[in-house]
Amino acid sequence: MRDFYVDTKFRVRYAETDAMRIVHHSSYIVWYEEGRSEFMRKIGLPYSKIEENGYFFSVVEVKAQYKRPAVYDEEVVVRTRLVEVRTRKVIFYYEVYRASDWTLLSRGKSIHVSVDENNKVTTIPEDYRELLLKYLSVVEYEL
Amino acid sequence: MRDFYVDTKFRVRYAETDAMRIVHHSSYIVWYEEGRSEFMRKIGLPYSKIEENGYFFSVVEVKAQYKRPAVYDEEVVVRTRLVEVRTRKVIFYYEVYRASDWTLLSRGKSIHVSVDENNKVTTIPEDYRELLLKYLSVVEYEL
Amino acid sequence: MRDFYVDTKFRVRYAETDAMRIVHHSSYIVWYEEGRSEFMRKIGLPYSKIEENGYFFSVVEVKAQYKRPAVYDEEVVVRTRLVEVRTRKVIFYYEVYRASDWTLLSRGKSIHVSVDENNKVTTIPEDYRELLLKYLSVVEYEL
Amino acid sequence: MRDFYVDTKFRVRYAETDAMRIVHHSSYIVWYEEGRSEFMRKIGLPYSKIEENGYFFSVVEVKAQYKRPAVYDEEVVVRTRLVEVRTRKVIFYYEVYRASDWTLLSRGKSIHVSVDENNKVTTIPEDYRELLLKYLSVVEYEL
Repeated sequence: MRDFYVDTKFRVRYAETDAMRIVHHSSYIVWYEEGRSEFMRKIGLPYSKIEENGYFFSVVEVKAQYKRPAVYDEEVVVRTRLVEVRTRKVIFYYEVYRASDWTLLSRGKSIHVSVDENNKVTTIPEDYRELLLKYLSVVEYEL
Repeated sequence: MRDFYVDTKFRVRYAETDAMRIVHHSSYIVWYEEGRSEFMRKIGLPYSKIEENGYFFSVVEVKAQYKRPAVYDEEVVVRTRLVEVRTRKVIFYYEVYRASDWTLLSRGKSIHVSVDENNKVTTIPEDYRELLLKYLSVVEYEL
Repeated sequence: MRDFYVDTKFRVRYAETDAMRIVHHSSYIVWYEEGRSEFMRKIGLPYSKIEENGYFFSVVEVKAQYKRPAVYDEEVVVRTRLVEVRTRKVIFYYEVYRASDWTLLSRGKSIHVSVDENNKVTTIPEDYRELLLKYLSVVEYEL
Repeated sequence: MRDFYVDTKFRVRYAETDAMRIVHHSSYIVWYEEGRSEFMRKIGLPYSKIEENGYFFSVVEVKAQYKRPAVYDEEVVVRTRLVEVRTRKVIFYYEVYRASDWTLLSRGKSIHVSVDENNKVTTIPEDYRELLLKYLSVVEYEL
């Protein structure tokens, strides 16, 4: 089984917490995106470049599971994997850990379709797809 | 089949949009919560009251599907249903529509467990559960 | 003294609170914008229309004062006034009240310059400016 | 003139952008807070610790100026200084730079009062204040 992932580490912002004194569940969706951005940058295909070329990886589905809460100021790690690459679709899988003891806080995935500037579904350019396939992980994930 | 839902209408905020000129996908998670809040208020059990009594409906899972984009300034409607009520768990189901023509923009659900002030899973108080059951929808939903 | 204002009422979202159990200070900036959007819509010049015509009211300065905290689920009113209209610049002034007892929660202002699609400062179109001037308030405001 | 500052570097998140394709002005308020958090951590007085001891630096005023836009994926640096320390009040001053060429993007300040758990204004504990005074900058700032 092939496995490749990119870890992104950052601290919880105060603005990301809510009245339960923990990180609001919508913040994890933003964190997944942070992990995805870093993943793309690391494999040499920054998402900003994809957009410059007129392509967008539009989000069609997101799923998130919350295991343990994160709190203000602690460091978290988002571990991002690319788990599916099709002609028009990619799927990313995420795990969020508390950095201090590697407790799993959250698990999620996002499904994206390739669209052009008019929001029309389009084939992922061949060279992009080849590059993405090199970093595809073949792992079991429960989601 | 029994069906009960609460509709919440509001306008898209500029801050909720992103560089694709459409609403960022994380904003829908906040909108679902807005719908859930209104639902609870309408059935006479505002969530702020639940918290005052030391209970919290902690989010353990969220799923969202994105069908069409929403843009700045347009009115959207979040239609919220309660689709499952167990001793410690509830599930809400959401549909987001563009108000002008009732185009379906997004569909989602959230799973919550009842926890106490120490974040320990606990049984939903009997009177809360009875009230919730009155407003349970028995509908098919694809998610 | 001429006075004209637009009131916008909505409920505090859970996602807008923070670990102090009150609304995070950055949320008020978003609320001001909500008030400004409603103001523009009410005077017949929705901001989305201005953008369609290739103009943007770019924010160059924001100031906010926080008097009392707002909490989850309570209704707030944003009272918005246009307090200055120049050839390239407009200033809005905001007051945020708790709806239940009209306690003043926050006071703020935002300064905007008119820019075109290339982010170049430009004169506000004459017909826009004339319309805006009709709704200008001549009030003292402490900020 | 004494000067002390803490630099915090991070990348612009997609969720922080808006339909103008640039970072939304409310995001800078969150970035200032990020800078302030890092400042406190660096001087050995993490804000999370202050809260544990029952003190809060409640925000009473924020001011932000926007010079140039930031865009998705670029690195920014928040330079944070403590510019005033009184018995119950502190003022922080911020500059946000584009990391690649040190272009100034934004300038801001935030005023905080020390409150206890009941949101009552209180004197900053003597040992905290002494520590803070060591890192006070005596600089001119235009705001």
